[in-house]
Amino acid sequence: MKKTIDLNSDIGEGFGPWKIGDGVDAEIMPLINSANIATGFHAGDPNIMARMVELAGKHGVSIGAHPGFRDLLGFGRRHINASTNELVNDFIYQMGALREFTRLNNTVLRHVKPHGALYMHAAQSEPLSRALANAIQRTDPSLYLYCMAQSVTYRVACEMGLNVVREFYGDRDYDSSGSIVFTRHVGPLDPQAVAAKVLQACQQGTVQTVDGHTIAIEFDSVCIHSDTPGALALIQTTRNALLSQGIALAAHVT
Amino acid sequence: MKKTIDLNSDIGEGFGPWKIGDGVDAEIMPLINSANIATGFHAGDPNIMARMVELAGKHGVSIGAHPGFRDLLGFGRRHINASTNELVNDFIYQMGALREFTRLNNTVLRHVKPHGALYMHAAQSEPLSRALANAIQRTDPSLYLYCMAQSVTYRVACEMGLNVVREFYGDRDYDSSGSIVFTRHVGPLDPQAVAAKVLQACQQGTVQTVDGHTIAIEFDSVCIHSDTPGALALIQTTRNALLSQGIALAAHVT
Amino acid sequence: MKKTIDLNSDIGEGFGPWKIGDGVDAEIMPLINSANIATGFHAGDPNIMARMVELAGKHGVSIGAHPGFRDLLGFGRRHINASTNELVNDFIYQMGALREFTRLNNTVLRHVKPHGALYMHAAQSEPLSRALANAIQRTDPSLYLYCMAQSVTYRVACEMGLNVVREFYGDRDYDSSGSIVFTRHVGPLDPQAVAAKVLQACQQGTVQTVDGHTIAIEFDSVCIHSDTPGALALIQTTRNALLSQGIALAAHVT
Amino acid sequence: MKKTIDLNSDIGEGFGPWKIGDGVDAEIMPLINSANIATGFHAGDPNIMARMVELAGKHGVSIGAHPGFRDLLGFGRRHINASTNELVNDFIYQMGALREFTRLNNTVLRHVKPHGALYMHAAQSEPLSRALANAIQRTDPSLYLYCMAQSVTYRVACEMGLNVVREFYGDRDYDSSGSIVFTRHVGPLDPQAVAAKVLQACQQGTVQTVDGHTIAIEFDSVCIHSDTPGALALIQTTRNALLSQGIALAAHVT
Repeated sequence: MKKTIDLNSDIGEGFGPWKIGDGVDAEIMPLINSANIATGFHAGDPNIMARMVELAGKHGVSIGAHPGFRDLLGFGRRHINASTNELVNDFIYQMGALREFTRLNNTVLRHVKPHGALYMHAAQSEPLSRALANAIQRTDPSLYLYCMAQSVTYRVACEMGLNVVREFYGDRDYDSSGSIVFTRHVGPLDPQAVAAKVLQACQQGTVQTVDGHTIAIEFDSVCIHSDTPGALALIQTTRNALLSQGIALAAHVT
Repeated sequence: MKKTIDLNSDIGEGFGPWKIGDGVDAEIMPLINSANIATGFHAGDPNIMARMVELAGKHGVSIGAHPGFRDLLGFGRRHINASTNELVNDFIYQMGALREFTRLNNTVLRHVKPHGALYMHAAQSEPLSRALANAIQRTDPSLYLYCMAQSVTYRVACEMGLNVVREFYGDRDYDSSGSIVFTRHVGPLDPQAVAAKVLQACQQGTVQTVDGHTIAIEFDSVCIHSDTPGALALIQTTRNALLSQGIALAAHVT
Repeated sequence: MKKTIDLNSDIGEGFGPWKIGDGVDAEIMPLINSANIATGFHAGDPNIMARMVELAGKHGVSIGAHPGFRDLLGFGRRHINASTNELVNDFIYQMGALREFTRLNNTVLRHVKPHGALYMHAAQSEPLSRALANAIQRTDPSLYLYCMAQSVTYRVACEMGLNVVREFYGDRDYDSSGSIVFTRHVGPLDPQAVAAKVLQACQQGTVQTVDGHTIAIEFDSVCIHSDTPGALALIQTTRNALLSQGIALAAHVT
Repeated sequence: MKKTIDLNSDIGEGFGPWKIGDGVDAEIMPLINSANIATGFHAGDPNIMARMVELAGKHGVSIGAHPGFRDLLGFGRRHINASTNELVNDFIYQMGALREFTRLNNTVLRHVKPHGALYMHAAQSEPLSRALANAIQRTDPSLYLYCMAQSVTYRVACEMGLNVVREFYGDRDYDSSGSIVFTRHVGPLDPQAVAAKVLQACQQGTVQTVDGHTIAIEFDSVCIHSDTPGALALIQTTRNALLSQGIALAAHVT
């Protein structure tokens, strides 16, 4: 049973004048411990990144980069058959873009978490996971890489001695392999159900799968996406449920 | 009369499978002292940036960021009526993207030079010059800012105590104000004429203007663009002319 | 006093997974007579265009193209210093892209209305207005061009014998020249105030200016933007106010 | 043995200021019978499209649209896991954009040929081939669809009663299935070898495969890409070889 947990969210995923989900990033920021800020390829833009980094700094939220496939229209949820080398270069480009805003604000880039189809691709690809881990070690070995316990990324990162944070997804379904069921569209969820699912994971270390089993799950952080409809209520309710059960909230990376 | 001069070039300005000018960046790199590497908004992409940073490191060339307007189709040569705040955020984003590739290669980002219409806009705008200089001071006060002696950018940067490098353009025309004549298209130039123009600037401190005058010009570095047709010959000929006159070539920033 | 008026709206201005304003295009469509559908440069994408054209066909709404500057991030509200020739080519490209969806749905492209900064630029530029009108005459002389009565576009289009629709803006402020006050951001408006303004324009042919005058205004159509916050209420309230005063709603172009 | 053949080329594949291959589209145009003009998603832009359509009209070249994946950086050669519906909407958008330039020039859109990874994806996917054929039938049943004889696209298009043109590729390798070997990068080729390969195909109806077999090949048109290095020499040499053997050159579609 966990005494403390890190609540993270993918955030800053608007673009230009547009909003995703409910457009409540500013309300979500004070409620989370770690922010994975979109870096412009699947979502986000320099103006949003500037605001998010400033806001994270103000609320003491740990700042992470959230790089994705170069696919605004598809929100980074469509796999692109790019070479590993291309994906690593995209990753470095985006990570650096966000890091520069932390320099501007006298804060620090703490972690990185690939987005959407890139995250899922890395989860199954040893060459990509290895290449991303290598890029992190060469650019900044102090960075933490967010990933799933049941992923090639986690195994490879551990082997290579990288700092790793394993995630549990409060707003995604799990299959019996312990991997999330990837989807391009997520509908509204019940805040109480999400909170209960997270509590069970934190207290019992288990999750129900889509095919009705209960499996053990290991994680260091809980993710609730900011673009899920009703995200603010999901995060608030989950946060309150954790606190009411005596589970403290704190960034894994400090 | 100069004993040493810095030869700089805007470089890495292809995009994806396309090339600009003669596509001879790899040949140009060993001949210059400072590389202003395009950062993806007006030209360049993460793959090209990776190659250029690696190549610059290999040849001991000083690495600079060359951020531009977000306008691939117009190659950053069309003014966009963006707010100063938007332009600063674009500037930071691009600067950081390039800096991360220097981290990857264990080299260092030394300077920054805005591109095309952004450079010309800053040259005339005190608010923009001030905002860019401020962004540099907040992110990395050791950076040098490339600009023209006859520009608001230079005046403001000096007032603010920024490191500055003044440029002379070997492949652009000058008007009688000492400013370059901005153009969206540059045709082929005579290498001997360009070399002679640079030599005159270095030895006599003067340049002929488009309206037939000879004016004094102050500078710390000579720029020849990589996208000018025949750029390689322009740079080689100019380089040889300088060396044959006993003018050494060395990066201004080290 | 008008017996019949055309209610038009700029619509389909989401992009990929993102929404603009309240994202209620599907609710707005049945309430309007003419839809100016975004064509992908400032907003909109092929998937949204497909849905909007189908929806307009289903509700008997007159279909127009709404081309803008190539500037997604700035939503086409930032002037780009492109040549007239470039802007005409962008205009043709976008108009054709939308027209093809009308071919797919066995409907017809009836009109065209430039968006945002392009609309305002044309309103003041004789060369651009003339070039756009010329492009319309060469591609489809039956098209109607939406513009403001107080604009160079209107004068030029009339001189050239083009079909024209003059717009009144229910959700924009007017200056004493009879031109709208262009803005990059529009806040929430009072539906009753907008409806009253439109009614006054339809019944008395006048509008209040930002500096307190009442001026005469000529128009053939009333525009309320879909991206104005609360757009659905603005359109419903205005529509009801017009109908309750015996003013019928019908597309100008049929 | 063929008496007449259609020589087609993918053309207009520059972007903004950049060129692909040798940038000799204007020289290639008079030498071919059918031009597949890039439509802006993988390459090409409205200015290039305007020039290419005008040039094709001037030289009596049959005009076709060459739509690709939305992936400028990857030149449409990287598969994107988009839905069939998204790909059809992209296809319609691009086809219409090009068609509008034919309206402007009083010429006609005659054919369409998907580009790169989209072409190869359709070649293997019945749902996509069926959806694209359906889109053609709904927008313009007189259009011809270019494809390979050994492809699902050809089979499906024939079943659906579409006009079809089967291509032989002078500048690509064949495998023993009669399909081309898809590649992201094509190196320089020997003009005599390409001409001989095309002559053999036209006179004997056969081609050598990469694994050393000679197989029968059926086709109505010969394609040589404009972005292959040395494309102009490849096309000129092939054209001369065909003419010298008494094989006339004429567009398949008129």
